Order: sequence, then C-alpha cells, then structure tokens
Amino acid sequence: MKRIIAGRRAVQEALRASSKQLSVLYVDQREARALSELVSQATSARIPIESVDRDALTRLAQGVKHQGIVAVAGAYPHVSVEEILNAAEPAPLLLALDQVQDPHNLGAMVRSAVALGADGVITLKDRACPVNATVVRTSAGATEFARIARVTNLRRTLDALGDAGLERVGLAAEGDTTLDELPYPQAGRVLVVGSEGQGLRRLVREGCDRLARIEQVGPIASLNASVAAGIALSECARGRRAALDAQG
Amino acid sequence: MKRIIAGRRAVQEALRASSKQLSVLYVDQREARALSELVSQATSARIPIESVDRDALTRLAQGVKHQGIVAVAGAYPHVSVEEILNAAEPAPLLLALDQVQDPHNLGAMVRSAVALGADGVITLKDRACPVNATVVRTSAGATEFARIARVTNLRRTLDALGDAGLERVGLAAEGDTTLDELPYPQAGRVLVVGSEGQGLRRLVREGCDRLARIEQVGPIASLNASVAAGIALSECARGRRAALDAQG
Repeated sequence: MKRIIAGRRAVQEALRASSKQLSVLYVDQREARALSELVSQATSARIPIESVDRDALTRLAQGVKHQGIVAVAGAYPHVSVEEILNAAEPAPLLLALDQVQDPHNLGAMVRSAVALGADGVITLKDRACPVNATVVRTSAGATEFARIARVTNLRRTLDALGDAGLERVGLAAEGDTTLDELPYPQAGRVLVVGSEGQGLRRLVREGCDRLARIEQVGPIASLNASVAAGIALSECARGRRAALDAQG
Repeated sequence: MKRIIAGRRAVQEALRASSKQLSVLYVDQREARALSELVSQATSARIPIESVDRDALTRLAQGVKHQGIVAVAGAYPHVSVEEILNAAEPAPLLLALDQVQDPHNLGAMVRSAVALGADGVITLKDRACPVNATVVRTSAGATEFARIARVTNLRRTLDALGDAGLERVGLAAEGDTTLDELPYPQAGRVLVVGSEGQGLRRLVREGCDRLARIEQVGPIASLNASVAAGIALSECARGRRAALDAQG
C-alpha cells in the first residue's frame, strides 16, 4: 500500500476507505479554507491535522502534485540494519536509540537524523516507542525519508556493527572524551543514545567502544534528550565531513 | 516572595494559601507514596505535577532541605539586559529569541542555555510566550537558574548590544557561514534565534552583524526549533571556550 497520499481527490478517497488508517494529515496553511471540508472529515475521524508550509508538503509528496494536502497512511515500513548499511553514504553515520519511549523525543530525533544526514536509525522492538502518528507528526514528516530498523537486542546489533567495522560511541554524561575531540573513522560510526532520565543500559554501554559526552557547564548539567541527540549528531556529522574531505 | 518552596511543611502551607499561585510541583518519583496527600491536593488545585529524580530536586532546592518535594511559586522574576551583562562571565554568550511562542520550545531553549553556560536569555514582552508553568516544567527547572530579560523592541536591544561590543549573530538557513567557522569574539556574542516556521523578522535580521547556518543535508533541511537552538548554542559555547583558552 502506498504510504504517502497526495492531492485532494486521493486524500478524499483515503478518508472514505476507513481501512486506510491515516496516521496524519498535512495541510498547506494558506489553503485551509479551500480544504475545510476534508479537514472537518479528518477531524471527525480523529486524524491529527498539521499545518505546514508549501515547501514541506512538496518534499513530503515526493514529486506527486499535492494541491495543498498530503496524508500519511498505514503501518510504518521498517527496514533492516543490513538495508541501512547497504544504502549508506561513505563513512556511515547511524543513530541507535536505547529505550526511547517518548514519541515527541523520538520524532525530534528522527527529524534531526534526517536533517543532519544520518544514514539510518535503529530502535528497539520492545520497550520503545513505535513509529506512530505522534512520531510522524513531531518529525515534521522526516519519518518518510528516514530508514528506521527495529531490533530485538540492541547489544547484539552493536556487536554485529562492530564486526562490520563501525565505531560504537555511547552518549553519556560520564564519557571520558567529548564528541568533537573524537576523530571520525572512515569505516563509520553508530551513535548510541539513551532515554531521558534513564540513559544507556549497562549491557548497551558495555557494547560501546567509547563513551563520549557533550561539554556542559552550569548548575543544571542536563539537556533535553532530543536536544542532546541533535547536538551529538551535529558533531558526528561535522567529523564525518572532515573525514571525507581529508580522504579527498 | 520566595519563588522556590522546598519541603513538605512549606509546600503544605503554600497549597493552603491560595494567593501563592504555585506554577508547578516537583516530586521525587521514589517518594510518591509518602507524598500522596500533598499530590492529591495539588491535583485538585490544578497545579501541574512533575516527577523528577532526587538530584534534580536538590539542585532546585538550592541548599534547602526538600524532603522529596519542591514547588515553584509566583510570577517569574525577570531581570534587565544590563543585569545579564553585569553578571556575565568573560566573553559573554547571550541567547535572544524573536517571537518564540511555543512554551515547549521556550522551555527547552532555556534549559539548553543554562546547561551550555549562556549568561542570559532575552525574549519579547509581546508576541512571545511568557515564562509560565509549562515553560518552567519543560525547562526541567532551568528557568530558576536562568537570567531572562523581556524587551519591547528586540532590534533596539540588538543595536544597544552592538554598541556594547557584542557580536550579533542571527541563526538563519540562508546564513553565509556556519557557526563553527565563525571565530568567537572576546567581547562576546548574542545568538539570535527565531520561531519555528517564521524565522527572524526582517528588522531583527538586519540588526545582526552576521547570519550563520547549521550545516544540514538530506531531503528535510529543517531541524526542530529547540534542537537548532541547542546545536547553535553548543557551537557558540565551544567557540567561547577556545577563545578563552587562546587568551590564556
């Protein structure tokens, strides 16, 4: 089934077919009046509606004429870790999430991963938030561009990624280095981030080659989880650019 | 009036005195049972309740014995821009917000500013979110450690900060430089950040010495506003450390 449904007619039909399970409706904020009938139908069906600008819609519609409206339907199409690695750019950058259960944090992290050029996101099958409508919405649609794999045992996945040559870096306040001091390896890196309050589980932490921290000062030495992940991803992305430049 | 109220007896009295206007109640998650009477009183009074760990409470209580419970009361005590500058560390770093209206974004930005060592936050009197209970809560209590000034005219404030020698850097996707390429001035910097979707207003943008961007790739070149502010602050904080190190 097609997951992205663009255009008035297509969305209208999807709204009629209740089996379509629309998870979110994106509407051009300047077309709200022309789309009021579709919007009120979606509201009755309890489908979350998000006002976005035309550019965001055009990206979401991926080439299809959208007429100011795009819906996201059906279950999220996960990929495998192997598919992420096969499709990765040189010096891959992956984001692995240990028990991130808050959908707003997950959505913001997926959005950061896509905007900062990470090749994929790995999350847990259990004890983690699934890619639901809130995540799609909080990600501002970035879920539709992301490659997201779900794994049963994150430690085993980290072991396999280590065998594949990737450096495994856990983000932790007690890290003995900062991310900007850590040279980015040509073979790539998986950045491992835990949930707010809980951090990384012991087994996951022990599956990392290095623990790195974000330099913080001040009386409250604790960033919001998705902000911390964004800063860490941004530092990894810069390291990656430098590593590729150095390689020529 | 005391804004931070720590300890069971003090919170009990504050709950009785309706004039106290408690804006949020922080409770040690492991003491929930012992505190259930206070928590149910607060729930009836529609005061938001936030479970936190003991360390967060201890920081919030600022030396007062808290017995697992801390309340935040009354109107937020804003300071002036002059007070921020007078209390600033060498090579000051300020965060100025143009029309940030979402309380979750404002709370996360204040939290990042405090955690990354910014000396103060400047926001607008009108067309901006006030420091309300949601902001206090989303900031995880960082508002109580922050210096926040409200100004009527941000452009005029930027002009004055320029006269005081600070570099004014606007965060904008069309910036002609990235923040990590921009050397941090000894005289300090004010980082100017706009709201999600709107960005910086023209007059504010024109009041900046430079516009800088965060390096982004990928099909969705747009970060969450509070993540973008966190990344930008983190790059400024690193530049500031380097500038102070260089000075010796």
